[in-house]
Amino acid sequence: MTPPTPAGVHALAFDVFGTVVDWRSSIIREGRRLGDARHLQVDWARLADSWRAGYGPAMDRVRKGEMPWTNIDRLHHMILDRLLEEFGVRGLSDEDKDQFNRAWHRLTPWPDAVAGLTRLRRRFLLATLSNGNVALLVNMAKHAGLPWDCILSAELARRYKPDPEVYRMAAELLGLRPEQVMMVAAHKGDLRAAAAVGLRTAFVTRPLEFGPDRKPDLAPDPAFDVFATDFLDLAAKLGVR
Amino acid sequence: MTPPTPAGVHALAFDVFGTVVDWRSSIIREGRRLGDARHLQVDWARLADSWRAGYGPAMDRVRKGEMPWTNIDRLHHMILDRLLEEFGVRGLSDEDKDQFNRAWHRLTPWPDAVAGLTRLRRRFLLATLSNGNVALLVNMAKHAGLPWDCILSAELARRYKPDPEVYRMAAELLGLRPEQVMMVAAHKGDLRAAAAVGLRTAFVTRPLEFGPDRKPDLAPDPAFDVFATDFLDLAAKLGVR
Repeated sequence: MTPPTPAGVHALAFDVFGTVVDWRSSIIREGRRLGDARHLQVDWARLADSWRAGYGPAMDRVRKGEMPWTNIDRLHHMILDRLLEEFGVRGLSDEDKDQFNRAWHRLTPWPDAVAGLTRLRRRFLLATLSNGNVALLVNMAKHAGLPWDCILSAELARRYKPDPEVYRMAAELLGLRPEQVMMVAAHKGDLRAAAAVGLRTAFVTRPLEFGPDRKPDLAPDPAFDVFATDFLDLAAKLGVR
Repeated sequence: MTPPTPAGVHALAFDVFGTVVDWRSSIIREGRRLGDARHLQVDWARLADSWRAGYGPAMDRVRKGEMPWTNIDRLHHMILDRLLEEFGVRGLSDEDKDQFNRAWHRLTPWPDAVAGLTRLRRRFLLATLSNGNVALLVNMAKHAGLPWDCILSAELARRYKPDPEVYRMAAELLGLRPEQVMMVAAHKGDLRAAAAVGLRTAFVTRPLEFGPDRKPDLAPDPAFDVFATDFLDLAAKLGVR
């Protein structure tokens, strides 16, 4: 059971990749489209999974100071260049690669996301709090019709989640105390890091984030303030009709 | 005559105080409300003008390094404390003062602003680019229904306009070249500084910004790319119907 909704929450800060948007099927779809246009034989599902798998280690290199600050667009492009080599994809122009890299700006929301956010926005200030860079998040919002009040990104702190500076920055920029901000994410590590600096937390399950064959950790955890199965359920749990 | 619309503009970056919202009549209205509630005799128009007049010099102290980085909410509060003394206003609680200081979060848009932005948003990415802090701009947008795609603030660069870093930051965060961003403002100094780093410029006249008795500089200037008398006129000049 979800405990009673924490009082005094003014803003919801959302993780985006996996929590708001279905990156995997979006990247596979864009890959297939590129493959058809350029007559490529590629396992796009495996490429999508590898692309995503490269993202954590790349950010970790930045977090540990092994690389200077590098935004997600550039990290994605570095990983893509390596994967195209690994997958034996040849003959793509620089423009093809740039265009494919920007598939991350065009990810499709989960079916409940726009309706759920629209409902939540009646009561709360809605911000992104993503490792995606500002341009990526703004373009995605425009493309997908995501009704954010504010685009906040790790890029503004020049630190990646789960570094505590990112969560603290969000509360500060919104002029709120940490406990007035609730982090919403499908990933427990993100929520644990947010809770460690005093934010409230809502765990939203996204069972298909990694595709039909991989089962993410979907178990409710009493360490988090709210448990929800999608954004409409989150609105209901937060008392917004 | 306005020259032809510059091609390749993707985003419009808006000055806010005076360009999007009518700070003067909003502050006077909130002052009168406070005065009625607390039985104060104050010339609220003169107080509003003095408050606004204190803002440039306060930012200049930050810009010159005479003060550490201080956001607009705090600068406004410092100016307000001084003015309440000067105007002989006594007996306000800290909560009254905080609440009045936050009148800047509740400024009313010019009558054409929401309709004009809504129209412009069909074609362009719309961002604020204001010296107001993020929280102020987000709360104002929520209060007034301003349809921004992105809240950008001088606070993110920890520099105040017209320092060039602020304009450069806007283009960088949006992933655009400077010439793909058009600064929209009712103030020529803001536009000149934006143009100096390569942004396009639109001058929108706001004849009543400083009240009926003060006439701002409203003359078209060929140094700017577009001249418009309000945001609906701006939409027309930019070819958005």
